[in-house]
Formats: sequence, C-alpha cells, structure tokens
Amino acid sequence: MADSPLRTLRDVATLRATTAAARAKGHTVGLVPTMGALHDGHLSLVRAAKQRCDLVIASLFVNPKQFAPNEDFGRYPRDEAGDAAMLAQAGCDLLYAPGAEIMYPEGFATTVEVTDVSRPLEGESRPHFFGGVATVVTKLLLQCLPDCGFFGEKDYQQLLVIKKLARDLDIPTEIVGCPTMRESDGLAMSSRNAYLSPEERRIAARLNLVLHDAIKEARAGEAIAEAEAEAARHLLAAGFSRIDYVAMRDAETLAPISALSRPARIFAAAWLGKTRLIDNMEV
Amino acid sequence: MADSPLRTLRDVATLRATTAAARAKGHTVGLVPTMGALHDGHLSLVRAAKQRCDLVIASLFVNPKQFAPNEDFGRYPRDEAGDAAMLAQAGCDLLYAPGAEIMYPEGFATTVEVTDVSRPLEGESRPHFFGGVATVVTKLLLQCLPDCGFFGEKDYQQLLVIKKLARDLDIPTEIVGCPTMRESDGLAMSSRNAYLSPEERRIAARLNLVLHDAIKEARAGEAIAEAEAEAARHLLAAGFSRIDYVAMRDAETLAPISALSRPARIFAAAWLGKTRLIDNMEV
Repeated sequence: MADSPLRTLRDVATLRATTAAARAKGHTVGLVPTMGALHDGHLSLVRAAKQRCDLVIASLFVNPKQFAPNEDFGRYPRDEAGDAAMLAQAGCDLLYAPGAEIMYPEGFATTVEVTDVSRPLEGESRPHFFGGVATVVTKLLLQCLPDCGFFGEKDYQQLLVIKKLARDLDIPTEIVGCPTMRESDGLAMSSRNAYLSPEERRIAARLNLVLHDAIKEARAGEAIAEAEAEAARHLLAAGFSRIDYVAMRDAETLAPISALSRPARIFAAAWLGKTRLIDNMEV
Repeated sequence: MADSPLRTLRDVATLRATTAAARAKGHTVGLVPTMGALHDGHLSLVRAAKQRCDLVIASLFVNPKQFAPNEDFGRYPRDEAGDAAMLAQAGCDLLYAPGAEIMYPEGFATTVEVTDVSRPLEGESRPHFFGGVATVVTKLLLQCLPDCGFFGEKDYQQLLVIKKLARDLDIPTEIVGCPTMRESDGLAMSSRNAYLSPEERRIAARLNLVLHDAIKEARAGEAIAEAEAEAARHLLAAGFSRIDYVAMRDAETLAPISALSRPARIFAAAWLGKTRLIDNMEV
C-alpha cells in the first residue's frame, strides 16, 4: 500500500489524531462509509462531503456482520488500490481501512439494534442485516466522530435506520442522505451490478422502469396493492427470477399505506439468478 | 430549581456547549452517571472524578428502561434538591438532569446490548436490566463525551457491561471503576437501603459477612459449589427471605469456576421482604 494515491489509515488512534488535528485548525470532518467496490454512487457521496466539510474521509470495511452465512461476503468484490485511486480522483482526503481485528477485537459482544424502521422490507428478507449495519455504522461514526456522515438513498431503509440510531444514541453527527446515482438506462448503481451477466444486466434495467410505471398507476388512482402486484408480475415477466418485495410505504416510518396521502416511496428487492438487486424511489 | 446550589443543565445542546468550552481551555471532563438518591458511594465517585478530571459532571436520570413493570421504578427515591446539595458539597461542578423527553423522544427505537457479560447473574434475575443500562449509559456518554466515566464496583457486573460496550462501540471515554463504599457494619451503600425497616437493616449487614466467610472457606479448600450453597443457607438462616444467587465467578468473564486459579469474585443477590440487595467482593 506504500504507493497508494491516498493516505490510508488502519487504526483508531491514528484516525482520531488526524481528525483532532483538523478540528484544532477549525476544520469540519465528513465521513463516507463504504464497503469498497466503488462506483460513481460512492463518489457522489465524496463530492457531497467535499461541499459540506473541510476534511473528507472515506472508510472501507467489508462488514462480515451484515452478511448471513449463505450470502455473498466471500465473493463481495474487493479492490482497495482501485478504490483508493477513485477516491483520490474524487477529491477524498483520506482513506480509513481498518482490519477486522480493529473492528471486532477478541471478545466483541455488543450490538446496536433499531427496532422499528429495521423490521419490514429488507429486515424481513435479511433478518441479520440491519443489526450488522447499525453496529458497524455506530462504530465507524464513534471512531471518527465526524460532523457529517454521508449515505446514499439507494439504501433508503438503511439511511432511515442510521438516522434513527444517530438520533436515539445522541451520536454527534449529522446524517446526510444523497440521491441514488443511476446508469444511463436508469439502473441504480450498485457494487453488486458487477455480478450480472450481460443478459442479466439487460433485464436489470427493467427494475427502475417497472417502479416508475407502478408510481404512475398509483398516482392515476389504481389501488396501492394492485400497483404493487402488477409491478411484481412485470418483473417476473421481464426475466427476474424471484421477487422479495415490491411495496409502497410511508417514506418516514415504512408503514404500509392504502392511499397516497403522505410522502411515500416505492421499494423493491428482486433476484436475477444469484444476484439480489434493490431499488427505491419517491412516489 | 433557581436556588439550586449547583448549576443544573437539562438538555444536550447546553451540556455540549459547556463541555466544548471546557475543552477549548484544555480541561478534561469526567462524568458520574447516577439515578439520584445519592449516598457516600456516589460521592466517592465524584471525588475520584475530581482527582482525574478538571470539570466534573454528575448526571441524574432515573432510567425507566432498566426497571421491569413489577419493579420499583415508581417508588425509587427522588430528591433532586438534596442530591444537588450533596454533589456541590463533594466538589461536583455541574448537574446534568435531563427529562425523559430528552432521553427517550417520541419514536425512540434503538437498543444497545452486550451479549456475554450481561447474561449470567443479574441478567438471569432481571432479563430486561442490562439492555436498559447499556442503552442509557451509551446515551449519557455520547451526550457528554467525557474523557472518563466513573462507575462503582458495587454494581460490578454493570461495570463489566459498560467497559465492554465502551470498548466495543469505540466510545472515546475511559471507564473507571471505583471501590464499593460500605457502612460501618460492612453493608454496601445503596439507594435501596432506604427501603429497609430497622429489623431488615440489621439483617442486611449479614450479607457482606456471609460473603467474607464463603471466601474464607473457598480459600481454605472447600469446593466452590459447597461454599456457595453454605452461604445461601446462612443468608436464609439470618432472615433473608429469598436468594437470587450466591456465586463465585471469573472476575473478568463471569464464567463459573471450579477452582480459584484465576482472579475471581463472589456475587450475591438476596431479598429482604420487598427489597432486593446485591453485593460482591474479590475472592
């Protein structure tokens, strides 16, 4: 890593010394937590952080606690050198890439859980997921103590979970949500898109279009449940192999809705072979 | 509260402004979390904090989340004015006494849990207890972000839980344990001692003596299990109405032990009428 284009920190003491030095100069600190395998969605978070904060730190840690044993922790794409180059290019000031022994030392036994917004949708499909996310994000925020933490709306439910835990635990960091970045055909950018075969990649682009259609139908007066069911049918017809959910929900509480009377979002999770894609948008 | 002998803060923003001003002068901050109903045990924590830190803050919050519905939340003794006077006398600089609406705002949904050292002993007798403690202490530490937090060894298992969560979540605070303070007859000081009738108070003093005897027996070679059982019999004979546990455990992990080969402690929880007393000491 000696020739990394970006200064890379591996431990909490060095991270804190660096942020303390920045603060002593009156600088603000922004943190962009990532699991690496960066794409322009992550870089948009770095750019948003640059606009708000003086010192921008990206973290890279593929968090084993948010993967179930049958999930893709082992094959999750890893390329720290490539990630560091992209971050440097985007204007990121520092990379914080701790090892598992820093994040989960021997005897680690503490979990953070958000019991309301983590329950539906992803919480039903991946019951272990948000406990792992909430715990690791709490740790990253407390290791760095940034003024602002930046998270993508691509993982909208995760953003709600993180906003809730930061408020509830009094973490002194403002959680900033940033819009989903999309490919030219509308596919939400995701590190997991790299798993897709060319044929799957073509089908994947239907996901955002079907959600747009469902929003149009619901706005035109179709019953919410019918718009959801129709979207699921369209995804299966387009070639998706399995649907975990297509659901319009209250944008703040994720509670089911029967009418578009309050701000709402549509959420979907669907499989293409072994790859699970998620997307969401404002209704 | 206008004539309180101690400056009293009620909200997080004022607390943070106050600690930030102290830090800007290069001062260190010590926090002594309490549920009020103060006695010399608490004041010994304030005195320990004064020795280590420039600005000493005591917090007062009777945390509903660590009481079960059938426990003594309603009758727990409350006397903020009296507590403030004692704290001022002991040299405490500030009282932080937030209301429940500050600690648990509407929609509060986050819990912190330590899954190993919180399981045995108190965790078995009071299954809700350490979840409530871990969550509120995390909040108090993150609201104040002290350099050091001070906790009594009287609640030794709680001290282990707090040390573990502070390490695991990377809370930038050193957790300092302080020795149990005792009355002249050896009874561990506790806010709940105020519940005892004169007759119960007389019996209560047997608890520490019986634990001392059990340690003596174990050191003399008696089997651990027999020393524990004998201590429980002696407590019942002395007038305790029920024993939750008497147990010698590894002082670090709280795992059961069969010999005194590593640092160990003896722990007990026992009832006198409606009052539950705990004590512990080094073996």
